[in-house]
Amino acid sequence: MLPGLKAGFTLDTRLEADSEQLMWLGLCELRVMNDRRWPWLLLVPQRPGAEEIHDMTPLDQAMLTFETNMVAQGLKKATGCTKINTGALGNIVRQLHIHVIARSEGDPGWPGPVWGHGLREPYQRSDLRRFAETIKAAL
Amino acid sequence: MLPGLKAGFTLDTRLEADSEQLMWLGLCELRVMNDRRWPWLLLVPQRPGAEEIHDMTPLDQAMLTFETNMVAQGLKKATGCTKINTGALGNIVRQLHIHVIARSEGDPGWPGPVWGHGLREPYQRSDLRRFAETIKAAL
Repeated sequence: MLPGLKAGFTLDTRLEADSEQLMWLGLCELRVMNDRRWPWLLLVPQRPGAEEIHDMTPLDQAMLTFETNMVAQGLKKATGCTKINTGALGNIVRQLHIHVIARSEGDPGWPGPVWGHGLREPYQRSDLRRFAETIKAAL
Repeated sequence: MLPGLKAGFTLDTRLEADSEQLMWLGLCELRVMNDRRWPWLLLVPQRPGAEEIHDMTPLDQAMLTFETNMVAQGLKKATGCTKINTGALGNIVRQLHIHVIARSEGDPGWPGPVWGHGLREPYQRSDLRRFAETIKAAL
């Protein structure tokens, strides 16, 4: 079994449709949101039924913090963005997932949030692969 | 000196204008956003110059996780909301601050994010005080 692939965990179908698998971390699956408007990553803790961060064990909460901040640092380094935006909302998709997004002055919707802003614009496959490789190299 | 009141730290003027002091935690000042549309709390780490979570020390990151999740749990318990939304954006106010918001189906802007949604609606002073007391009791 792959590291991070926990028994009983199934990825939400909407998360699966909107994003692409990038790599496994210790607790989370790291995914790339397939939206070329912003460099946008998702961390999905491999815990069946988890909806709120505070419902996870203290160890999982600490792991999630470590992995989220490692990803945020790598994304900022890789993109040279102005500001990292992180968020855990889950109003639409209840399965716990944490957004880490690279924001820069003048990007679509700046300085507002990305969530709910217009329609997703999928990458060309080659551009998505290139972005994924850049992120892997930065982590 | 009050606990949490670190030398050299000054609260951003916009955060000060939009929210009210609630209590000191170990790392953060906990504040109530003065917007009666949603039960909305802010954690402000008392670290001069901090803008990104990943730039803080590992210990501060762990403390912030602990305090954020404690506040999230208390807010969910106190409000009986559908979902907690947490976020650290900082596109407008660069001083690091973490939002913890109680969201419920049918609230203003649901299921979209609260940031950038319409105009802030300040509480009546007595309602703000009552909400603050409820939160203190839940923590």
